[in-house]
Amino acid sequence: MSDKDFVDTTIRVRYAETDTMGIVHHSNYIVYFEEGRSDFGRATGHPVTELERAGYFLAVTEVNVRYMRPAVYDQIITLRTRLTGVQSRGLSFAYEIRDAENGDLLVTGSTKHICITRDGKAARLPEAWRDWSLD
Amino acid sequence: MSDKDFVDTTIRVRYAETDTMGIVHHSNYIVYFEEGRSDFGRATGHPVTELERAGYFLAVTEVNVRYMRPAVYDQIITLRTRLTGVQSRGLSFAYEIRDAENGDLLVTGSTKHICITRDGKAARLPEAWRDWSLD
Amino acid sequence: MSDKDFVDTTIRVRYAETDTMGIVHHSNYIVYFEEGRSDFGRATGHPVTELERAGYFLAVTEVNVRYMRPAVYDQIITLRTRLTGVQSRGLSFAYEIRDAENGDLLVTGSTKHICITRDGKAARLPEAWRDWSLD
Amino acid sequence: MSDKDFVDTTIRVRYAETDTMGIVHHSNYIVYFEEGRSDFGRATGHPVTELERAGYFLAVTEVNVRYMRPAVYDQIITLRTRLTGVQSRGLSFAYEIRDAENGDLLVTGSTKHICITRDGKAARLPEAWRDWSLD
Repeated sequence: MSDKDFVDTTIRVRYAETDTMGIVHHSNYIVYFEEGRSDFGRATGHPVTELERAGYFLAVTEVNVRYMRPAVYDQIITLRTRLTGVQSRGLSFAYEIRDAENGDLLVTGSTKHICITRDGKAARLPEAWRDWSLD
Repeated sequence: MSDKDFVDTTIRVRYAETDTMGIVHHSNYIVYFEEGRSDFGRATGHPVTELERAGYFLAVTEVNVRYMRPAVYDQIITLRTRLTGVQSRGLSFAYEIRDAENGDLLVTGSTKHICITRDGKAARLPEAWRDWSLD
Repeated sequence: MSDKDFVDTTIRVRYAETDTMGIVHHSNYIVYFEEGRSDFGRATGHPVTELERAGYFLAVTEVNVRYMRPAVYDQIITLRTRLTGVQSRGLSFAYEIRDAENGDLLVTGSTKHICITRDGKAARLPEAWRDWSLD
Repeated sequence: MSDKDFVDTTIRVRYAETDTMGIVHHSNYIVYFEEGRSDFGRATGHPVTELERAGYFLAVTEVNVRYMRPAVYDQIITLRTRLTGVQSRGLSFAYEIRDAENGDLLVTGSTKHICITRDGKAARLPEAWRDWSLD
């Protein structure tokens, strides 16, 4: 597979994302993961905006996160997003967040998603979304 | 006027709402204000959920906040929400946030809103929303 | 064990917690879990504020969430927080979020935590925090 | 004055920043403003991280926002941050947010800040922070 097997997103930590411990609040990595998926979709010709215009949404059914090292305000981090599974009705992704400068591994995670219609019913992914020849 | 001239909401500060300074991040008071409006609507028979089911939204057009004293994690605060203006197409509110225990004034603010339809067009408030005999 | 085996927290969904799909953004359940832990600590005589005053923090090392049904603005939900493990240097919790009215299961999850000092070093939990005779 | 009179920040709207109305929740512009200040400080040699390492914080005392047009998920916006006042103990900023493509004005705002020490006492700004020859 090509380099489109994964997509890297660079993020600078916002002040509002930190908490009293002086580090990024752990819930914000879930938001970073989502932006990684957005970038992955854009980079591979599957923008989420297009899916939603067609009347479909990718609902999150599972999130798992491991926290190794904290990130702090102003730190630049690199999020690597990888598509790990494609089913007729869903997708799976895996994530790695590293310090952009020294490469230290900060956080890893994975998410699962199912395709739903606006009224919340599970649906088959549109044809274009089941075809991810990532090269 | 009766005690329905204003509505008080009790909020306990969440850990995620704090930042590296060890205090509530200033953007969160805007979220508290919104919950104050929600409570005001419920307490006076004008729930926002009902307005939205009828196809209308109260879009925010203006927010002003003054910060006097910071709140910290676990602190219990009282938000007083007051309706300060009713126009055919909009509403205005004012807010005071105090420490629930000693009454110290922490934050004051005001917001303005216009009624819009789902497609974003300005609209007259539904009849029931122009009538706020607050007693 | 007694009813202190778990602690229930009632939460009303805030407007700001929803997203374009019209449901609670999935990252917010992580914030709810944290408030469940806060409540659990208060209800069992182990307030987080006290731990932090003693110079210790409970850093999150792992979060797992399963999403079954979405919650929407204004919905009242019940979060059940259960302590599932106590080690010399850490704690584990499990969570269930249900619709407060009909009891439908919306979200389940678990988290793991280690005790650290302000400079981020792992530490033994203070004595009082290793003793959770939950009755 | 030179082009350092203001600093432009490009932001892509995150999914988590939207709400049930399908637009950016109004509280998030306050977070964007803060990132504008961060960028302004970095671009003019006054990074916030350096100020905080010296033991000072810029506490927010006032926020004012006017909302003209909504932004939506995935939209690219340009935030222009301008320093509008320097006092011995504080700073003032003004902001304009526009659609990055067509230049439509979406949101304007202003903030005021005072310099405080870690224990919350008002303090004179460090010398370097009172000198903003912006050229």
